[in-house]
Amino acid sequence: MSVLVVGSIALDDVKTPQAEEKNLLGGSASYGAFAASFFSPVNLVGIVGNDFPKAHVELLKSRPIDLSGLKVADGETFRWSGEYFGDLNTRETRSVALNVFESFRPTIPENFRPTPIVLLANIAPDLQHLVLDQMRQPRFVIADTMDLWIEIAKDRLLELLARVHMLILNDGEARQLTGETNLIRAGRKLREYGPRFVAVKKGEHGCLLFGEGGQFFACPAYPLEEIRDPTGAGDTFAGGLAGFLAGQSGAEVSFDTLRQAILHGSVLASFDVEDFSLERLKALSKDDIASRLEDFRRLSAFD
Amino acid sequence: MSVLVVGSIALDDVKTPQAEEKNLLGGSASYGAFAASFFSPVNLVGIVGNDFPKAHVELLKSRPIDLSGLKVADGETFRWSGEYFGDLNTRETRSVALNVFESFRPTIPENFRPTPIVLLANIAPDLQHLVLDQMRQPRFVIADTMDLWIEIAKDRLLELLARVHMLILNDGEARQLTGETNLIRAGRKLREYGPRFVAVKKGEHGCLLFGEGGQFFACPAYPLEEIRDPTGAGDTFAGGLAGFLAGQSGAEVSFDTLRQAILHGSVLASFDVEDFSLERLKALSKDDIASRLEDFRRLSAFD
Repeated sequence: MSVLVVGSIALDDVKTPQAEEKNLLGGSASYGAFAASFFSPVNLVGIVGNDFPKAHVELLKSRPIDLSGLKVADGETFRWSGEYFGDLNTRETRSVALNVFESFRPTIPENFRPTPIVLLANIAPDLQHLVLDQMRQPRFVIADTMDLWIEIAKDRLLELLARVHMLILNDGEARQLTGETNLIRAGRKLREYGPRFVAVKKGEHGCLLFGEGGQFFACPAYPLEEIRDPTGAGDTFAGGLAGFLAGQSGAEVSFDTLRQAILHGSVLASFDVEDFSLERLKALSKDDIASRLEDFRRLSAFD
Repeated sequence: MSVLVVGSIALDDVKTPQAEEKNLLGGSASYGAFAASFFSPVNLVGIVGNDFPKAHVELLKSRPIDLSGLKVADGETFRWSGEYFGDLNTRETRSVALNVFESFRPTIPENFRPTPIVLLANIAPDLQHLVLDQMRQPRFVIADTMDLWIEIAKDRLLELLARVHMLILNDGEARQLTGETNLIRAGRKLREYGPRFVAVKKGEHGCLLFGEGGQFFACPAYPLEEIRDPTGAGDTFAGGLAGFLAGQSGAEVSFDTLRQAILHGSVLASFDVEDFSLERLKALSKDDIASRLEDFRRLSAFD
């Protein structure tokens, strides 16, 4: 099966205490699509300006990613600039310029509409609704979100939750959306809003997966001593997870399959943060993934 | 084998948003000894005042805990009073009265000195040294500590680390003691100070175990929706862990054994926080422990 990824495509300027890089390929859909492409073919829908570097297009094209849903509009590409502090646990956004992204109204190409797995990467809930309106009964829809939408578009986000199979968000967002500080209660409450599954990301502490009938999985994070750039870790996690599901055969998505998807997403995210932008993922092989998964399994086994 | 537990014995007043309880049995040694006693006989060394309620002594006596090292001094028992806020994630100490604990100089009874497993529960490093000075080549020594000692007795604490096999501390303390924000680096650096094993506790996020040759285990926390009183969770964890080790046969403590000890400590701590003081642990059966362990294993399994 293939996976549809819709989200932002950006040019990032990233500064850490060790280094500074400019005009990096970024955005939720870039990371999501790239990560998913390790496990299944990807249909990408997004928008860039006519300043978008050819090298970035070539990089996406080097993977099994169908770019026929990539719109090139007159104007500049969405730009994000951020700085990380200390041990990269703290981030400040220095500037955001939406540019052509401001007018983004995702149009799903006709041949993408039956795509069975859909990843609504982090964009405004209104746009996520618009994508679903155009899809033909997708088998499994995953929505990512962020604190901004909980603040300014909470009602539309809640309406969206009734339309998706899975919600992915981080711990702070889970608390913000539910008003619950206890993450176990927060995760279970989020399921009552609609999604069959909820994944709560906790950064260096891993993530929690909630399913039907009290099903639960606590996944630690793969241990890393050095992180070069955390940008896109959450998007990579979601993309790896969605791609893994698309790579499975046609049966209904079970909790056990999602548990494996979470592990694959976590491993992809652990590679992402080892270098700027998609640098580490560019050089990644199937063997690298398999070997880290094996290592991860060993380090987290109870026996 | 048996385990020696040395630490504080206190009368606690605890307030949460839901309830307030006074004159509770508390202190690092009370929780540690009680938890350890589920897996092995315990030799307890501590001090109380002559105001110490008989019911608390009876409670400890109801378990396989040898109280011949419990000194009753003229004066009042160590008192701690604290309040928890919100979802009990934030705590404020309202008052501390050391009372007879101020003059505590642990004397290890002659028949306790060959105890093979030693838990130096959270007390001043000077007192922890004093205990070790009296012991006869213990097989495995575990030290707990707290931020206060890192602030006011760092040198003595570092000297202690060269004398113990295992250090237990929380994430904030690990960062404070090493100056590393990355917990993986912090844990590995702490091993260079002396202990063969380091356990970094992360509360609701579980704990990390570091061993020789890069050995590592990430243990999530058992998921709990309701927490009534988090007091003593760390001490219970340490006690359960130490008791589990003492309950094993005589071979050297391996990483695999410690991994099991961490799981048992985590399960004991998850019961502790379900009620005030030792209320939940009092009613705990071996079957309760086995059943939660089984559940914990299932919820954290990768397959």
